[in-house]
Amino acid sequence: MGEETYVADINAVRAMLPGVSDTVYLNTGTCGPLPTIAFEAMHAELQRDLTRDRIGAEHFPRLIETRNELRGVIARAVGADPAEIAITASTTDGMMSAILGYRWQPGDELLLTNIEHPGGLVPSFVAKRRFGLRVRVVDLGLGGGDPADIVAAFERALTPRTRMIVLSHVSYTTGACLPLKEICAMAHAHDVIVVADAAQSYGALQLDLHDIGVDVYAGSGQKWMCGPDGTGALYVRADRVGEFEQTFFSGGTIRESLDYYGGSVAPAFGAARFDTAGRSLVLMEGQKAATRWISEDLGMDWTSARISDMARYAHAELSRLPGVSVVTPREALAGLLAFNVAGISGPDLTARLAAEHNVTIRFVHKYINNPDAARVSVGFFTTEEDLAALTEGIQAIQSSL
Amino acid sequence: MGEETYVADINAVRAMLPGVSDTVYLNTGTCGPLPTIAFEAMHAELQRDLTRDRIGAEHFPRLIETRNELRGVIARAVGADPAEIAITASTTDGMMSAILGYRWQPGDELLLTNIEHPGGLVPSFVAKRRFGLRVRVVDLGLGGGDPADIVAAFERALTPRTRMIVLSHVSYTTGACLPLKEICAMAHAHDVIVVADAAQSYGALQLDLHDIGVDVYAGSGQKWMCGPDGTGALYVRADRVGEFEQTFFSGGTIRESLDYYGGSVAPAFGAARFDTAGRSLVLMEGQKAATRWISEDLGMDWTSARISDMARYAHAELSRLPGVSVVTPREALAGLLAFNVAGISGPDLTARLAAEHNVTIRFVHKYINNPDAARVSVGFFTTEEDLAALTEGIQAIQSSL
Repeated sequence: MGEETYVADINAVRAMLPGVSDTVYLNTGTCGPLPTIAFEAMHAELQRDLTRDRIGAEHFPRLIETRNELRGVIARAVGADPAEIAITASTTDGMMSAILGYRWQPGDELLLTNIEHPGGLVPSFVAKRRFGLRVRVVDLGLGGGDPADIVAAFERALTPRTRMIVLSHVSYTTGACLPLKEICAMAHAHDVIVVADAAQSYGALQLDLHDIGVDVYAGSGQKWMCGPDGTGALYVRADRVGEFEQTFFSGGTIRESLDYYGGSVAPAFGAARFDTAGRSLVLMEGQKAATRWISEDLGMDWTSARISDMARYAHAELSRLPGVSVVTPREALAGLLAFNVAGISGPDLTARLAAEHNVTIRFVHKYINNPDAARVSVGFFTTEEDLAALTEGIQAIQSSL
Repeated sequence: MGEETYVADINAVRAMLPGVSDTVYLNTGTCGPLPTIAFEAMHAELQRDLTRDRIGAEHFPRLIETRNELRGVIARAVGADPAEIAITASTTDGMMSAILGYRWQPGDELLLTNIEHPGGLVPSFVAKRRFGLRVRVVDLGLGGGDPADIVAAFERALTPRTRMIVLSHVSYTTGACLPLKEICAMAHAHDVIVVADAAQSYGALQLDLHDIGVDVYAGSGQKWMCGPDGTGALYVRADRVGEFEQTFFSGGTIRESLDYYGGSVAPAFGAARFDTAGRSLVLMEGQKAATRWISEDLGMDWTSARISDMARYAHAELSRLPGVSVVTPREALAGLLAFNVAGISGPDLTARLAAEHNVTIRFVHKYINNPDAARVSVGFFTTEEDLAALTEGIQAIQSSL
């Protein structure tokens, strides 16, 4: 476990996260705890909102400047260029921009997997209805096994009309981390674009998006990056930016000039044209502070390594319990663990762990062949004591069944 | 002026708006001052964000509940039903939802006016490119004159292919308030939908949207309703909701069930399907508090009457100054006044009024035949002293030219 190398820092890290001091918090995959440093940045900005600062001539320029600063912070965190980053309010925002913005021709095909979130599903289904594309589902089982088999499953599903693969880097339901780099290499060899739902990977994994080669990568700010609600980030690879139409506009997403009688307008340079948020300085300052703290102060190498270590520990501890079956494939583990306890449903287990043991987890529903399950998120702030509270709670509930 | 009936309250009203205490603030059309009551609601919510409240099982249900409460507050303010209100982050959000969501057929026509904001223009131009519609511009001059002539100008421009009129209730450039009710009656007689940009009317005018009969009405939260940045409201008349596709999704905008293999999903009931925001409790609590204060505590009858009185006073005072020409037609006055001062440009006048006289206004650009101009917004909190500071500042600058 390497506990000794962490123990000196973890109390200081947790002291920055007051939300986790009064509950055993194992649900960052829904919403991470807000760090005090982000609260303070938001509070300072909120106080400026009461003054002439908010309503003066510098207000809008500062909004754009802050948006660009935030773009830079996010870019550094994921190995991208700032011009490849759009400021969004959610993972779903980014998925929409890519899926509804693509220039579909009737009969084009989009591939989904069987373990997707509505953030990828819903835009795909609406694009299907509006633009006449065909949507097909690739069955990856739980998303584990040999990465080559996963890649082969996608490759077998390709047809000459396939234009886009929509998948989750880490599935929110089974918790499996897909071999994204290998999938992208295969897809690009067939001239297919890969759009990744990064809700459960952005902020949880150390990322080098240029190395991975993914075309579009859409993440949330409030989950593993512990930012405020209503924040997110979208990566669009520089050479792909021009392949998507804008489907959302706000000040800053177009160039200054527009041709009124001609009825045309030019999008902003770079991925900024896909900004769906960045209109609240309060939210942006919070997102910037949280992202900086995690990616620069703590460092993604440290946070991602700790998440990985603790998730493997949790996998082992849960697997050891009689009557508990872990859904998440060990070989595809990231920060999420889905599991079932014999004799009690995910919703009931979630409710009882909260009410009787002050342990916060969640549950996920079966869509196709992913099982209904309870789900635990292991954060960089999670301790072995947290996981002991989880397993003890499960055992106590089991003994009452 | 009826000054006597206001004077007892105006100091208390202004005490709620600390931002206007240290500048003569005449730019609510860009961004209204945040009331203390909204700041306090946001601050309280921000503090909850540090606790387990933010990350517990009640978080998402409370988000949806707050969104629906906000829907109710906005509905009451504009004479609508809550099911006709979507929570947005801006006027532009609402314009996009309607213009990109409409089920266009190639060759359909959309009518704009010559005095629109990019919030209506940009979605129209992108819809033109993507869906093959024809966009035509109706020239209303400055937007004043006999309302019957305005209606006739639209009616003359209709063809059998016209599907939608996109216009501003109050033009952000000339300040003219268009005869929206009469335009809607004419348009509906021809089976044409009216989509109104309400950025300069929502919160400034007393509205009964059912009486006006408009189909879509898109406003901003941070302007005349004095809410936080990144807030807005969209009205879609109940019987029109089904005529628009969703172009934006988030938790709450779809029904629970989706058909994974069938590739379909059902939108949420009512206008909630068009929510583009409502993901930050901090912003929603601020928007709710500001909207309640203006529409319920002060009352839209009082605020709108005061805006109207003070705007007429400002129109008279500016018209009286030698070398000043008021652009905004007096017969179409709402809360905005565009004007020019001989010998100095709008940008220069704006900069000098701010630097030398602590008076905050803005300027607007010529697009077609609306003139470049300086622009003043008259709020319900504006006083005759504010307007005296404006006219004295203009005179001082004139004497230096």
